[in-house]
Amino acid sequence: MAADAVERAMRAAIAASVDVRGTTSPNPPVGCVLLDAEGHIAGVGATQPAGGSHAEVVALREAGERARGGTAVVTLEPCAHTGRTPACAQALREAGVAEVVHAVSDPNPQASGGAELLRAGGVEVHSGLLAEEVEKGPLRAWLHFVHTGRPHVTWKYAATLDGRSAAADGTSKWISSETSRNEVHRVRAAMDAIIAGTGTVLADNAQLTARDPDGNLLDRQPLRVVVGDRDLPADVRALDDAAETLRLPGGDPDAVLRALADRGVVDVLLEGGPTLAGAFWAAGRVDRVLAYVAPTLLGSGPAALGEAGVGSISQAWRLWIEETTMSGPDLRISAVPRDR
Amino acid sequence: MAADAVERAMRAAIAASVDVRGTTSPNPPVGCVLLDAEGHIAGVGATQPAGGSHAEVVALREAGERARGGTAVVTLEPCAHTGRTPACAQALREAGVAEVVHAVSDPNPQASGGAELLRAGGVEVHSGLLAEEVEKGPLRAWLHFVHTGRPHVTWKYAATLDGRSAAADGTSKWISSETSRNEVHRVRAAMDAIIAGTGTVLADNAQLTARDPDGNLLDRQPLRVVVGDRDLPADVRALDDAAETLRLPGGDPDAVLRALADRGVVDVLLEGGPTLAGAFWAAGRVDRVLAYVAPTLLGSGPAALGEAGVGSISQAWRLWIEETTMSGPDLRISAVPRDR
Repeated sequence: MAADAVERAMRAAIAASVDVRGTTSPNPPVGCVLLDAEGHIAGVGATQPAGGSHAEVVALREAGERARGGTAVVTLEPCAHTGRTPACAQALREAGVAEVVHAVSDPNPQASGGAELLRAGGVEVHSGLLAEEVEKGPLRAWLHFVHTGRPHVTWKYAATLDGRSAAADGTSKWISSETSRNEVHRVRAAMDAIIAGTGTVLADNAQLTARDPDGNLLDRQPLRVVVGDRDLPADVRALDDAAETLRLPGGDPDAVLRALADRGVVDVLLEGGPTLAGAFWAAGRVDRVLAYVAPTLLGSGPAALGEAGVGSISQAWRLWIEETTMSGPDLRISAVPRDR
Repeated sequence: MAADAVERAMRAAIAASVDVRGTTSPNPPVGCVLLDAEGHIAGVGATQPAGGSHAEVVALREAGERARGGTAVVTLEPCAHTGRTPACAQALREAGVAEVVHAVSDPNPQASGGAELLRAGGVEVHSGLLAEEVEKGPLRAWLHFVHTGRPHVTWKYAATLDGRSAAADGTSKWISSETSRNEVHRVRAAMDAIIAGTGTVLADNAQLTARDPDGNLLDRQPLRVVVGDRDLPADVRALDDAAETLRLPGGDPDAVLRALADRGVVDVLLEGGPTLAGAFWAAGRVDRVLAYVAPTLLGSGPAALGEAGVGSISQAWRLWIEETTMSGPDLRISAVPRDR
């Protein structure tokens, strides 16, 4: 198959997988594009919610007979494991697909072996196409989960250029721009869960939901996780019926992550406040930072990050900045811890 | 003259003017390129230190007879004022220059009228070429000084992503990267003066000089200005003989800026600490922010900016981010206050 047609198909497969982020855990959000023997798109699929079909099967269903002699382009190596659904490698073979191109090899010992199974059946298999894009993008959290057994934690915060999350009098509406706030709602909708501390829930009465710019709830809502021991009045918005809420006492990050892993939560957004964020840092349990830095200065007021186990400059948490973009007037910084 | 030759010449004139920043105050750092009648560069000049020649005269001297029928490309409208040096407009006319292209018109009532004088002498005059680049670049501080009577203040700071300028134990070597620290020395060398508070001088024993990466003093040193009432031991490095030091008691930004304006200081780098920076903000006397944000997190320790007259979120100082670039691993943010 022509290399440019396959790369275009992989980009379409990635886009399809991004669309289902937040709906597939504990399964990975995978995308698949089936090209017929002439290189035309015959089917597109993405992972359905757990218990539903895998991406390859969805795409095969759409392609029907056109799959025969064609190429399956998938963001993850097709599974060799028959669980709640039949093995995808087997399904591709039976459909007569001549070639499979996947981005990332399956690190899951239970599911891997798909490439081998395909080759044994006479299917040509290539791996690695746009692998980095997939590993750092749609499959990042799931790969982290498979490697560590812990959900992937993105610490999101909004602060001024001088690191404040509110003014001296406690006012914080709004630190970041409308553009950034709308983007955060879209980020939430792609997550399995949102974590906030009881202090933040009390201070901001935040609903912790994913909403559209008009304030209406989006179709999918992540699990709300409220961590800490402080009592919450029954009428706080984080406990309303807009989404499911899990209350976890204490504040130990590892205990929180274990409880979430047990529920099949893979991708988590940690939204603070400063004390809880500091505890996650001190425990080494932040895997990515998503910062919205507003071009404003306050000079006083609470900091976005509290005590994080750092006493001296040599102990500072060091990051790599992956990307800096503008989000309206704000700076949007994506960074990952170094030396992990 | 061909437009592209003139634009190339203007870029060369800008570069020549950038090279003399910090050496010309209270005169503006101006660059001039003389093209002969065929469009070839016949002379390049930049403002000499106060009392010396203006850029046009330096360029005319190099060009000699080749100036006749040529084009003078200048970052600022040639002056019509005969002061310590003869009027540049007159000199260009007498040299037989056929055309003058300048970026920025002279806002100084004492010196303006150059374009008129040239036109009266039959010289073709065009203005505005790359004007924004010059206004925001090499002539920014001088234009601010002409408009307000106050030196232009750039607040430079280095902080972590969470806005800290030191760790909880006071250690701060180093918040920012070597790349950033070297760049700050080059920034200092292009300034007329550096301001720091007595608290910072005592805490860091900073020399407040411009040095090369090996630690050697650069040829030009800005005036060191130490603001505040605390006593300084005679052996602090800010009082050594590496550069001139001016001590100003009190901490009122306007008093500081008046004292500096009286000395012909136009372009100032405010280097902190947090208290002095806060006072300059509270007084509305910061004209630009140059932030080196390190990709590190501390979670505790002193903030880069102290009390700045902001009690509530609605009073926050709002900025426009002009540019964000990487400085080694750090983010370098240039921003200007809004609504000024």
